[in-house]
Amino acid sequence: MMLAPAPGRLFGLGVGPGDPELVTLKALRLLQSAPVVAYLAAKGKKGNAFSIVESYLKPDQTLLPLIYPVTTEKLPPPFNYETALRDFYDDCAVEVAGHLKAGRDVAVVCEGDPMFYGSFMYLHDRLAEDFPTEVVPGVCSIVACASVAGAPLVYRNQSLTVLSGVLPEEELLERLRGCEAAAIMKLGTNFAKVKRVIDALGQTDRAVYVERATMANQRTAPFAEVDPATVPYFAMVLLPGTRWEG
Amino acid sequence: MMLAPAPGRLFGLGVGPGDPELVTLKALRLLQSAPVVAYLAAKGKKGNAFSIVESYLKPDQTLLPLIYPVTTEKLPPPFNYETALRDFYDDCAVEVAGHLKAGRDVAVVCEGDPMFYGSFMYLHDRLAEDFPTEVVPGVCSIVACASVAGAPLVYRNQSLTVLSGVLPEEELLERLRGCEAAAIMKLGTNFAKVKRVIDALGQTDRAVYVERATMANQRTAPFAEVDPATVPYFAMVLLPGTRWEG
Repeated sequence: MMLAPAPGRLFGLGVGPGDPELVTLKALRLLQSAPVVAYLAAKGKKGNAFSIVESYLKPDQTLLPLIYPVTTEKLPPPFNYETALRDFYDDCAVEVAGHLKAGRDVAVVCEGDPMFYGSFMYLHDRLAEDFPTEVVPGVCSIVACASVAGAPLVYRNQSLTVLSGVLPEEELLERLRGCEAAAIMKLGTNFAKVKRVIDALGQTDRAVYVERATMANQRTAPFAEVDPATVPYFAMVLLPGTRWEG
Repeated sequence: MMLAPAPGRLFGLGVGPGDPELVTLKALRLLQSAPVVAYLAAKGKKGNAFSIVESYLKPDQTLLPLIYPVTTEKLPPPFNYETALRDFYDDCAVEVAGHLKAGRDVAVVCEGDPMFYGSFMYLHDRLAEDFPTEVVPGVCSIVACASVAGAPLVYRNQSLTVLSGVLPEEELLERLRGCEAAAIMKLGTNFAKVKRVIDALGQTDRAVYVERATMANQRTAPFAEVDPATVPYFAMVLLPGTRWEG
């Protein structure tokens, strides 16, 4: 009679914003001891998380790439991006669960932090109740941008508002009005809209712009001079809190 | 004739939320190569940042403790906590600058992230224009709490509101009303007030409570059962974003 093996453990490893040296000691240890390393990536791409950890992997580790089915949110009916994504995450969970049931630990590497706008959350939602799960937090992009820009972000009891640039212009305006400090993520084609809002609020001089913080092709630029046509998705605008003079 | 040495470099090193294994490879490398290691601490205490890195230090490194002058915000007139703090940070900057001018690199270790509610910001404000400065981002307490609680924090285009528990009750209520996801930091004696607000907003069942995330004495508890008298300053309430079902 064969006994079923003890289930493997699911690790969600935050591997930081881009610089492989911004991986934590804990994430590196768990990464290198996992027999299976999973990562999400767009079709034809390595994916940011995989690129960050690639140099740390060992030859005997099994790679489990989880490749997004589509790259645009615009599909002709009856296709639906949301449904396709849900089905995709369901399939990913089944693949990962296969290894876990066979007793193999799976490390899912996640750019930034796993619980902060991370795709790992969809695996966590599907698997954490059924398998032993540990999440290792990582350096998130917001604090990476603040470091790169040399911009202290929030002083003392200031509040911080974190927004997606995808939001409609009116909602961005409403949420940023009177905020003490803010980070607006996911810029890309949303940049021109975000800039209109920041200009309208009279915050242009305060805004800090950073592209791909800590990645090899990181770039900062004066906010007023940014060409909207060149802004990547992994760009951010910070509105740092007013300096506390003591 | 003696030439002045090239100035030392100022490093602000984020050392993460508490677990020494959540230090990044980069922070560890720069920490161990710095001849001077500075840290802020309350009188009679080691300080959290120092405790996190203590085991990584080498015998030949010079320690520069920067000890807060007062531990309460209530001083009899004409004394003033804000003025005392400003004077203290001025003095700290002079001490650190002394090493930098002598050509010695100084690593200031910072719990969590240096630019996110970190005391390093006051040194940065005073020194970064005059000395070569590099800030290394760290894992901040918010994502550490989300990991420890197994609580995905923000999905897709949800907004996140980060607040200090020190804020007045009315302001907390106003800022949390209708928020999609939130983190309320700096609880301590503010917990009872924060709880009243969360209860009033009908968010009690959604709230997640974590004390000293990733530290040796970490603790989680159901929010409704927390005894306000026991809540430490390094405790946090999260209101995670609604799960995205795809």
